[in-house]
Amino acid sequence: MSGSRLRDVAARAGVSIRTVSNVVNGYAPVAATTRERVERAVQELDYRPNVLARSLKRGRSGMLALVVPELDVPYFSELARAIITQARLNGYTVVIDQTDGDAGRERELILRSSRAAVFDGVLLSPVALSAADISEHNPSVPIVLLGERIAASPFDHVAIDNVSAAREVTEYLFSIGRRRLAAIGDQPYETGETAQLRTQGFREAHISAARELDERLIVGCPHFHRSEGARAMSALLDGGGPTPDAVFCYNDLLAVGALRVMLSRGIRVPEDIALVGFDDIEEVRFTTPSLTTIAPDKTRLAELALQRLILRINTQDFSGPEELFVSHRLIVRESTTHGRQ
Amino acid sequence: MSGSRLRDVAARAGVSIRTVSNVVNGYAPVAATTRERVERAVQELDYRPNVLARSLKRGRSGMLALVVPELDVPYFSELARAIITQARLNGYTVVIDQTDGDAGRERELILRSSRAAVFDGVLLSPVALSAADISEHNPSVPIVLLGERIAASPFDHVAIDNVSAAREVTEYLFSIGRRRLAAIGDQPYETGETAQLRTQGFREAHISAARELDERLIVGCPHFHRSEGARAMSALLDGGGPTPDAVFCYNDLLAVGALRVMLSRGIRVPEDIALVGFDDIEEVRFTTPSLTTIAPDKTRLAELALQRLILRINTQDFSGPEELFVSHRLIVRESTTHGRQ
Repeated sequence: MSGSRLRDVAARAGVSIRTVSNVVNGYAPVAATTRERVERAVQELDYRPNVLARSLKRGRSGMLALVVPELDVPYFSELARAIITQARLNGYTVVIDQTDGDAGRERELILRSSRAAVFDGVLLSPVALSAADISEHNPSVPIVLLGERIAASPFDHVAIDNVSAAREVTEYLFSIGRRRLAAIGDQPYETGETAQLRTQGFREAHISAARELDERLIVGCPHFHRSEGARAMSALLDGGGPTPDAVFCYNDLLAVGALRVMLSRGIRVPEDIALVGFDDIEEVRFTTPSLTTIAPDKTRLAELALQRLILRINTQDFSGPEELFVSHRLIVRESTTHGRQ
Repeated sequence: MSGSRLRDVAARAGVSIRTVSNVVNGYAPVAATTRERVERAVQELDYRPNVLARSLKRGRSGMLALVVPELDVPYFSELARAIITQARLNGYTVVIDQTDGDAGRERELILRSSRAAVFDGVLLSPVALSAADISEHNPSVPIVLLGERIAASPFDHVAIDNVSAAREVTEYLFSIGRRRLAAIGDQPYETGETAQLRTQGFREAHISAARELDERLIVGCPHFHRSEGARAMSALLDGGGPTPDAVFCYNDLLAVGALRVMLSRGIRVPEDIALVGFDDIEEVRFTTPSLTTIAPDKTRLAELALQRLILRINTQDFSGPEELFVSHRLIVRESTTHGRQ
């Protein structure tokens, strides 16, 4: 069926060719139910836009850059996978590069990508950039920010509602009877906005529930790696402050490191200390105990970011950058529930 | 120091400009010690080849394709990271695409990449391809195979010595007193050569040690995922065959799945059953118990594959495809040692 054309897709989906084109090329927004019908028809007919012809006609490369801090951090590789899949559906190829969370490298990649006009657009998950860093970028190459925001930047931004997710975790831990909650992962400096939003949600839930919060139970982490989770957990246990009966880690890798430290000290999870992560990477479905976590809708995140980027590419209208949110849900597993299977 | 040039690198390394060029551009092989000196100088001076100028002069894109089955499998994302780092050092950009281990998709990517001449070369980690599948590829775009081989193909192939690694694991398990070893991950069909080599090493070590091998203790797995390791371990325990006192999994993800099943059934690791994986992904340094595994030299694998690919690109000489091996080592951790910290 590889000879399918726009017209066949339109007939199968029962919509106009213009509507199919709006979905596939992102010329204009399309209602969710219609979009789903078109996407199903695209998949059923195995329709692939003729990228090369399209690029030649429009003077575009058909390539998008995905710039992430670290490709071997599971959250980013799972997100990259979702983005590659979505981009392919839209006839784009994705070039991936990683910055190691270094501001200079992030800036270099953005400027190089946009100046050389090799890429039609850039998806950026920034760690270290400020708005000033990218003021020189070529404005005709659109950028969409994933997850982390750049304060006061003129770019669309797709993320989950971090404050409400953190509040949900905190309220859940109170609801199962935990009283001294610790948080691992705060980043109280300019480029740590996502972490700060999670700390904000953690604090707000304490205030709403009229619970006291011991500041020694909030532990910072410059990077969200397993080794830092282990270090932070050791610091919590050895620091002379109160021992928590629940720990909320700002990503799953931190939780994996914290879990390792607790188990190696004979601390029972969740009986002695309950544990919650963030991201729902596959790894934490297989730890013992399996990990309670926040699952962002990664597929939808990829879809929305691509849609927005393609719309900007095609319209070349960069006015009114938007904040777009995708949903998340709390997945309860063994690390917070006593009755383990 | 970003203004550094080839000449500065040569002076710093104490070698000729031609030698630096051979290392950086891969024109000709360079002795390991010299290469290391040059690479150190390149890093110290932050030298970056002028890719765009070079591409224009030679009619090349400066882009390489890395085609892997699944980007969110940690082995591949760690390898991708190493390859991106190495490619950057050589002035190349890497485009990553994934095939989901589907032969049609692998073939499509190879043919598209090579026909459109978008890429100067392709690094391919094949899962499902046979030589016939890629007989139509454009021969002027070189391909280097990573890990899995394609039987009778005309391509360079970089991998570790799988037979000797598996033999080493098996001999080690005998040496610590284990007698009934199981293996999880066999793939007794055309495209499963890596798995077959590991089974071969497992068998050879049994023969050398004059130990009997119960065929029911070799369990197949079409994919090397956590869920399949869990399934295979359950099959071993419930299958009615002998219960093993050690399990060798053909990758770390399988071992993570097997570990989860054992712990949830109250089986002590390693006291009741010892466990060994393969790949040394970061995840298994943080499991409880941490996992004994085979660590391939991923940095060297990336380096050697890039070097070989760039040599083929620059010489356009595709004669005499080579088998190149990188080293590995057995890393002993808690999953096989009683005296845990």
